[in-house]
Amino acid sequence: MTAQTVAPSATDAHSGAHGYMSSKEDYLRRLKRIEGQARGLQGMVQDEKYCIDILTQVSAMTRALESVALGLLNDHMSHCVLEAATAGGDEAQTKLKEASDAIARLVRS
Amino acid sequence: MTAQTVAPSATDAHSGAHGYMSSKEDYLRRLKRIEGQARGLQGMVQDEKYCIDILTQVSAMTRALESVALGLLNDHMSHCVLEAATAGGDEAQTKLKEASDAIARLVRS
Amino acid sequence: MTAQTVAPSATDAHSGAHGYMSSKEDYLRRLKRIEGQARGLQGMVQDEKYCIDILTQVSAMTRALESVALGLLNDHMSHCVLEAATAGGDEAQTKLKEASDAIARLVRS
Amino acid sequence: MTAQTVAPSATDAHSGAHGYMSSKEDYLRRLKRIEGQARGLQGMVQDEKYCIDILTQVSAMTRALESVALGLLNDHMSHCVLEAATAGGDEAQTKLKEASDAIARLVRS
Repeated sequence: MTAQTVAPSATDAHSGAHGYMSSKEDYLRRLKRIEGQARGLQGMVQDEKYCIDILTQVSAMTRALESVALGLLNDHMSHCVLEAATAGGDEAQTKLKEASDAIARLVRS
Repeated sequence: MTAQTVAPSATDAHSGAHGYMSSKEDYLRRLKRIEGQARGLQGMVQDEKYCIDILTQVSAMTRALESVALGLLNDHMSHCVLEAATAGGDEAQTKLKEASDAIARLVRS
Repeated sequence: MTAQTVAPSATDAHSGAHGYMSSKEDYLRRLKRIEGQARGLQGMVQDEKYCIDILTQVSAMTRALESVALGLLNDHMSHCVLEAATAGGDEAQTKLKEASDAIARLVRS
Repeated sequence: MTAQTVAPSATDAHSGAHGYMSSKEDYLRRLKRIEGQARGLQGMVQDEKYCIDILTQVSAMTRALESVALGLLNDHMSHCVLEAATAGGDEAQTKLKEASDAIARLVRS
């Protein structure tokens, strides 16, 4: 019981650190669906479906992943980066550098 | 027995139609690993890992998917498209149009 | 005079080798416009326009370039690759390998 | 007081608004080179160069453009977005939304 009342505040502290937590359930649901797409692709290859149809599904899955990434990045910037910016100092620059590197990886992948 | 002798030839015919079959096991193995990455991402969100670390894993997964897509496309062109080209006629143009559209979806996704 | 009658046939031979020639004028026109976009971007930086507006123009220019690339690739496959496929032999595999590598560069760039 | 009506302070204000100004000359130089690449591509099409070689140049030009975009975005976030964040209020959210939309366009283009 005590543990149960402690846990939420720990989660709240965490929520501050990780901006995506407000939509955690939504991300889990989308990633679950993406996992299902990966399984669906295995079924298509197993059943020797037509290549072009498999590629269409791969493109759909890539777009779904990209969309999750853009959402996470957006949440991260609205929370972590913004908080670091408000606090000021080196932390803000560090967070921005991290975000920039992550964006570069997304753009190039 | 009859069934056993029928099945292989049906599979052979299929192999002709779907060029990726030679590396079917390899594709299944890679897609299985991608499915595992999708599950790993759910674990990271569940455990409220740092956003940037999650994004790094998303980029790795996107690259793995892209690599499967490029492999499938390559196999498809080396088999289906090449066969249609050799046979000639409208079929060759149809196959090329399909491949071009799939490439455009990959480039833009 | 002889030179004048020789030139067209040389061009014809070239046309066979380079499938995009049928729409050469169209590609030149589109690349000219892309060159203009690059110049426009310099003007925007020179005039210190708002970053986000510059980025919007960069995205438009990237898409225009991508569209030229997809067109060239399509023309290349419908002509060079198809001809090599019809002729058969190693040349077909070489052309397909080249096309696959070019596609991978496009997808990853 | 006089200084306040003089151009330099207006420029300073501008510098604050447009974070890329510190490297303005560098961006101009890179965009000039990209313009040259667009001209080079026209020469290649005009001379009916081999498609695959043209595509290689298009990929190089796309990467150069992407690199300019990532630089501008980084500068924009380190300056405009950070300043808005420090100032706080709706402006910070507006700037972040703008940046997110620009990132999405880059990732999808």
